[in-house]
Formats: sequence, structure tokens, C-alpha cells
Amino acid sequence: LERRRFPVKELRALASARSGGKTVSFSGESVAVREATAESLSGVDIALFSAGASRSHALAPAVLASGGVVVDNSSAFRMRPDVPLVVPEINAHAMAKHGGIIANPNCAAIILTVAIHPLRQLAGLERIVVSTYQSASGAGARAMEELVEQTRGHLAGNEPAPEVFKWPLAFNLFSHNTDIQENGYNGEENKVIEETRKILEMPKLGVAVTCVRVATLRAHCESVWLEFDRPVSEHDARSVLSTAPGVILQDDRANNHFPMPREASGQDAVFVGRIRRDLHNPNALQLFCAGDQLLKGAALNAVQIAELVTAAR
Amino acid sequence: LERRRFPVKELRALASARSGGKTVSFSGESVAVREATAESLSGVDIALFSAGASRSHALAPAVLASGGVVVDNSSAFRMRPDVPLVVPEINAHAMAKHGGIIANPNCAAIILTVAIHPLRQLAGLERIVVSTYQSASGAGARAMEELVEQTRGHLAGNEPAPEVFKWPLAFNLFSHNTDIQENGYNGEENKVIEETRKILEMPKLGVAVTCVRVATLRAHCESVWLEFDRPVSEHDARSVLSTAPGVILQDDRANNHFPMPREASGQDAVFVGRIRRDLHNPNALQLFCAGDQLLKGAALNAVQIAELVTAAR
Repeated sequence: LERRRFPVKELRALASARSGGKTVSFSGESVAVREATAESLSGVDIALFSAGASRSHALAPAVLASGGVVVDNSSAFRMRPDVPLVVPEINAHAMAKHGGIIANPNCAAIILTVAIHPLRQLAGLERIVVSTYQSASGAGARAMEELVEQTRGHLAGNEPAPEVFKWPLAFNLFSHNTDIQENGYNGEENKVIEETRKILEMPKLGVAVTCVRVATLRAHCESVWLEFDRPVSEHDARSVLSTAPGVILQDDRANNHFPMPREASGQDAVFVGRIRRDLHNPNALQLFCAGDQLLKGAALNAVQIAELVTAAR
Repeated sequence: LERRRFPVKELRALASARSGGKTVSFSGESVAVREATAESLSGVDIALFSAGASRSHALAPAVLASGGVVVDNSSAFRMRPDVPLVVPEINAHAMAKHGGIIANPNCAAIILTVAIHPLRQLAGLERIVVSTYQSASGAGARAMEELVEQTRGHLAGNEPAPEVFKWPLAFNLFSHNTDIQENGYNGEENKVIEETRKILEMPKLGVAVTCVRVATLRAHCESVWLEFDRPVSEHDARSVLSTAPGVILQDDRANNHFPMPREASGQDAVFVGRIRRDLHNPNALQLFCAGDQLLKGAALNAVQIAELVTAAR
């Protein structure tokens, strides 16, 4: 909010009772953290929620009751037909009608859709196959700390047992930590499948996803294979992506310089590269992308939505 | 050779002149390392080459001249039509006619084909999309050391500049370090594409591959999407893989326990799991596999080939 000079008249920093007494700094001022309750939310114009689905369910009514708008970063409302699921570069128009709640998509779905949406102006998208390389930070600050401490321990020969994740992540990788659901896909994969379809407004798009945690601290990467309804040239794909909003084209074959977590960390844009034709299927393209899931994959996208809410008032 | 009790009458340990004077131990005996030359190779029955394509080209004639067989781990001969490219679990029959050279495939191609070949008894394979998670050891011992030292430095706040790889690998990942070739794919990807087709004897199989280095020390993983010419059930796929040679089925949804580099390291088998139907395409399946690329992806496969050479004598 501060970095984007969001027009804040009053900032309320709300959290669980446990955080009472803490302060956060905003635009050079210290703001006391209060407990998030119906009372402390009363009268806010825009509430940015990011405390998990059950908190969102519990607290949204208080915001709506006083005419405010909730921009929700949890999965609580994302798939509700009356709730827009918005990536401003793609479907800001979906905000035209909302009932007070606008959902911020899953991080991997945002990064994916920002990278592939621009290509839809070249041809109809038929199906995609995605494999992710997701960082520890997607599971929270404690998961990042665990990766660092576990790695330190491993190098010293006394690796601590994992606590946040079920398996060690240091010098390892594993299928995403969310539970496997009825259909054989884990929670993260099902979010990417459903949310990608909703954001792109393509409810029948074929989306095959494998979500994997890797030993990176921040920024998710995704390897994406796309099939269109007609051939798309590498040149046209590169051309469209080079001017696409929210995208930085990073496709330097001569220097083998393509999207990487280290370079994408702390950046607003989604980096896209490795653009190449499928050698067998003339209608298919491949690409590799990286995006900071704490920024575009979460906080930045939520603030962008809030900016649209403010602009529409 | 020692672990598999290969019938060795005489072992010659050959390397570059630089290694002269070193020794290796074999079955409790110390073997002096000699320089690999036409003379030192004279009269060998089986030569296991693993010193790069140019050395293989230079030294193979000496072995062939004295009636020996070369099992070559480099890329020198793999795509030559008169050279069998062998994964014993898949195409041992290809060894029936060879001209003295048998090629050991690329590590990622071996792990991939061991995992997917068994499924071909259920249906015809139409195309595959693969994204890899390849460990540092694929680039040699110095690359492993670099990852360890770089990680140690990163944690201490004074990360050394990368030397083996172009980019830092600690808490990072990047598109495979081999050069991008004319067709937009890097060297590793082109090997996987071509060698997979040759091993499976499917010269027109659609193989779309993205090869990525991740911060693991040993064992490669691969996320694989497969399309068949008819529907294949998860049950049948699991059943076939549970008894497939060289495969360990590791597909425990309840415990979120699937193939991981840490568990596959040091193991002979390729671990396969995450078997699930594509939700959109009834003819497609997905899986995730992990294999130790120093064992099944290199040394073990070469020794298995040598065992077949010996058995055929």
C-alpha cells in the first residue's frame, strides 16, 4: 500500500488477539495492531483479508454490513459464482458486478494466468499442462525459516526434523504439501485448475497441473505447455509477451538467461521465457515463468484490486 | 561392478594422465590408475567409457580393434543407427546386433523411459509432456561441491560467485545449463526427446520436454503427462507399475508420500507415483518419478548392459 501510494485516509492493522500490542509501520508512522473483530472492522471502506478461509468467513459480514468491500486473499470465496476472482491485467471487467467481496486468486494461478493470457490474442487456447516449482514461502514465514535452519543443520551434519512440512525440503523437493483430494489431485492443483478456468472465463479449458515444492525461498516457477487451436509462432508469442501488462519477457537464448526464482524475488512482474514450439505438435508452444508469489501472487494483486475498487467509487 | 558381483577377471582403471599414480579399490584390492590409451585398452573384453564424447570417439577404435565391446556413457554414439541405445528393462533385444559399441542413454531419458515403458502394455502411447527437476550431480562432482559451498556461503551472508554453473543454484533453479540449440531446445532436452524415441522404438512419438536444474544434490525427478490412444485407468497403471522391472511404485495418497530425490538417492530403482487421470482428457494420465541418475541414470545401467554382453558370450 505504501509503495504504491495507495490513497489511505486511515489504516487499521488487525490481526489475532495474539498480536495485540504489536505495531506495524506505515508511511513513517507506527500503527498499533488491534484484534480483528466485527467492531474493529466497522466502517472500513476496503478490507484486505489474508488470515485464512475460516477468518474470512467469520469477518466478511461485518465489512459488508457497513457497506465496505472485502478483497480476500483466502480460498473462502474464490469459486463462488457471485464473487469475482480477479487478476487486474486479465479480468478487471469481472469486478463490474460484485456483492462486496472480490477474491484474490491462488498464487500459482495468478502467475500462470498472467503469463499465458496475452497469448490468447493470437489463437484460441485448447489445453495446458503445467508443472510448478514452488518456494517455501508459499507455506508461510515459518516454512521459509524451516528451510533455512534445516539446510544449515544438514550442512553441519545434524539436520533437525521437519515440523512445518512433513518431509525435509533442504536439498530435496516433494509433491505439494496440501492433501490429496478425491480426484487424485492435491488441494493446490485443484485450486490452479479451477481458478485458472474462472479467471480466463474458460470453464472447460483442459488444465493438467502438477504442484511441487522445491528448495527455494521465494518466487514460484512454472513450466507450461500450451496447445492452441492453430499454430502460434515463437516470434508472435514473444512479440505479444514483450508488451503484455505485468510481464517481463526474459528469453535470452544466447546467454541461457531465463526466468529464475532469485531474479523474480522482490519483483512485481511475472518473468516469462523459454518460448519455443513443440517439435511434434504445430499448435503447441512451451514457456517457463517465474513470479514472486508474495507480491504478484498475493499482496500486490490484492492491492491492485483495491486500487480498482477505489477508482470505481 | 563390485556390488553386482560382475565376473571380473582383470580390472583396468583408466583415466587421464592427470590421474596417473592414483588408485581405486575394487573387491578389497587396490588398483593403480593408468592413462587411457590405445595400448592400455588393448585386449579388454568390455570397456566402460565415461569420460565425455571426444574421449569416447578417440578410444573406441582401440577396443574394437582387439574384438572388445564398448559400453559408452557419453553422447558420442547414441544416435548412430548402427549403435543400440539400451535400457535393459526395455530394449535388451536391441543388443542382438551391434558393431562393438552399445550406448548408455542420457540419465533423464533412462529415468523417464523406465517409468513410462510399462504403461505401453495397457495402450498405445501418443505423446508425452515432461518437466524435469534435475540435481547438481548431473553436472559432475564439482557442481555438487559448488551447490554445497554456495549454500553454506549464502547462509553465512558471503555467497561465492558460481563457477561450474553460470547462475547460482543455492535456493534457486534455472533452465538446464546446456546450450540452447537451433530448434529452441537445450542440449539436454534434445537428448531426452531423441533418445526416448530411440529407446522406445517410436521415432515419431511426441515428446515435449523442459529440463531444469534444481537445488538437489542427487537423483532427478520428472513430472510426466502422457496421452494414450484410449483411456487407461489409474488402477491398471498402478497395477502394471507395481510389478514393472526396475520400478518401485510409491503412490501413497493418504500420507502424501511420493517420489523424492532424498529417498531415491542411492537406490537402484526408479520411483513412480502421483498416478492420476487427466480431469479433462480421458486418454491422458500424469505421474511423477525420481531416480538416482548416478546409478540407474548412468553407472548401474552401464553395468546392466555389460552383464547382458557377458551373458551373450
